[in-house]
Amino acid sequence: MSEIRVLQVGLGPIGQMVTRYLLDRGGFEVVAAVDADMSLIGLDLGDLADVGPLGVEVSGTVPAALNGVEADVAIVSTTSSLSRLEKQLPPLLAHKLPIVSTCEELVYPWSSQPEVARRIDAAARQAGAPILGVGVNPGFLMDLLPVALSGVCQRVDQITVERVQDAQFRRLPFQQKIGAGLTPAQFDAKVREGTLRHVGLTESMHMIAAAFGWKLVETEEQIEPVITEREVRTADLTVAPGQAVGVTQRGYGYRLGDDADTPAIALIFRAAVGEPESYECIVLQGVPPIEMRIPGGVNGDVATCAVVVNAARALAASGADHVQPGLRTMLDIAPIRFSE
Amino acid sequence: MSEIRVLQVGLGPIGQMVTRYLLDRGGFEVVAAVDADMSLIGLDLGDLADVGPLGVEVSGTVPAALNGVEADVAIVSTTSSLSRLEKQLPPLLAHKLPIVSTCEELVYPWSSQPEVARRIDAAARQAGAPILGVGVNPGFLMDLLPVALSGVCQRVDQITVERVQDAQFRRLPFQQKIGAGLTPAQFDAKVREGTLRHVGLTESMHMIAAAFGWKLVETEEQIEPVITEREVRTADLTVAPGQAVGVTQRGYGYRLGDDADTPAIALIFRAAVGEPESYECIVLQGVPPIEMRIPGGVNGDVATCAVVVNAARALAASGADHVQPGLRTMLDIAPIRFSE
Repeated sequence: MSEIRVLQVGLGPIGQMVTRYLLDRGGFEVVAAVDADMSLIGLDLGDLADVGPLGVEVSGTVPAALNGVEADVAIVSTTSSLSRLEKQLPPLLAHKLPIVSTCEELVYPWSSQPEVARRIDAAARQAGAPILGVGVNPGFLMDLLPVALSGVCQRVDQITVERVQDAQFRRLPFQQKIGAGLTPAQFDAKVREGTLRHVGLTESMHMIAAAFGWKLVETEEQIEPVITEREVRTADLTVAPGQAVGVTQRGYGYRLGDDADTPAIALIFRAAVGEPESYECIVLQGVPPIEMRIPGGVNGDVATCAVVVNAARALAASGADHVQPGLRTMLDIAPIRFSE
Repeated sequence: MSEIRVLQVGLGPIGQMVTRYLLDRGGFEVVAAVDADMSLIGLDLGDLADVGPLGVEVSGTVPAALNGVEADVAIVSTTSSLSRLEKQLPPLLAHKLPIVSTCEELVYPWSSQPEVARRIDAAARQAGAPILGVGVNPGFLMDLLPVALSGVCQRVDQITVERVQDAQFRRLPFQQKIGAGLTPAQFDAKVREGTLRHVGLTESMHMIAAAFGWKLVETEEQIEPVITEREVRTADLTVAPGQAVGVTQRGYGYRLGDDADTPAIALIFRAAVGEPESYECIVLQGVPPIEMRIPGGVNGDVATCAVVVNAARALAASGADHVQPGLRTMLDIAPIRFSE
């Protein structure tokens, strides 16, 4: 098979990781790159991603990037916000490009933002191209994987998913994103201003509920700091006792009749520097009951690159089993997988 | 939604379990039932399945069963053999019925029996109906689930799947099927005559290889008894020391360059009465490495009914996301899931 030609839109930390992985993996060629940041325009993508020149110049717009260049698929890593993403789509759809995006709110927007979802779906259908939101969380570990496990369940009554991560060896921006090193007051301030928040638990709950045919009457998210009692050091950071080493975020989804103590869906995400054990855990209470564990957990950065690129390969494929045009979710396409 | 009308073909232990589950679950109605066993013809399906009369008489043929009756989907649990199944398909396809079958060799027949697979695919496409092989093993725990997990892998180098079951509380026919109570000589004789063999490891290996784009140059299966050193008792069975309590079956798939000690795919299935621990374990060696465990394992009988009926619901669905006609596998359809 010839190489899959990729347009990358959004060249922040995730975009650059994807660039490096695409180069390392082979089978793909980044043919064009776009970022809205004026200071990046004109740079060589490879220099930006720290892999040496690739001969691809960063453009400020999609039309400029695709001037005389053909791509098979677009990888968009620009924003967590669905409404912001929507504004970026027209030039991509004008080129009829299948789109894979790390936009967390795109992973399952049908319940929380149905009008935007319908508009994106209509535009993508009209362009004849599929658009898919992908990610590790939301998008895989806390939603798709438990749904896939339920394939062997006669009944699911309640679902609890835990994702617990030691952030010791993650990127500094990730450690800062989860609040490591902040005082409790600083942490609260960041939560209030909306800059310290993992986006996606609500999307995951809606994806699970849609899959199971459950109607949620209420969803809520809680967020609180993980406070350390001892000093914690990483390569880039020292956290004093009494400060935050990370965040615990909980999402609860209630069905009619659930009381506050028994949400049908409970998602617990904790990421903290020095967390004693990383793991993924899915518990489906039902028939049969299923408890799945991944000791050590799944590295989010590595896995994000993987699922983005594995999905891009699937969406770039043509032929009988090509992904249908429109807004797709992981619930309605064949399982995204590694393939050589 | 109105009830899904089911034709059941094959009313052995699995068929009867499915009948009971469909009744218990609701949302489905068994409208017709077929078995080739002359002694069953004319019996009430509900009496046969031990749930009291259902008003559905067992017929000897599909045309007789569907005379004046309409069904939305057929559930076929007649055989493990693809070639035998093929002979049973024409009257079902003549009714354009989507078909879900527990036939182990149907789960992934493209590599081991490509000609039969192509014929079935062509016939199903011509009829405009999908046909899907489903099961827990093969079909889910040792093939689809590891493939789905690989969605977050940048690379998979080797895969090992273990399914270990204490058969203490399974059906007596299952305990007998795995050789519990046999002397080593009796066990070997049954292996030689082909009656003691879990069917499906090879299919699972081919499904995994196809998903990952791996070319296997050789596959092999090994089978040996699990011999007990102490007496083991179950409700129905007493096994003396030195006799078999069950079976260990191993499947190895080699890629070019693998030596005998390092198969790219290793599947280990052990089912024995009194096995100390039941569990599922999937290890993907790669980037990131993933080790998934389901302590306690997944009950095969319960899960088989579940996946059959969850798949039947998916195949009976019409509309935009209906399953495409032809021979389908779990690799090329949206994840089968529990849904209320």
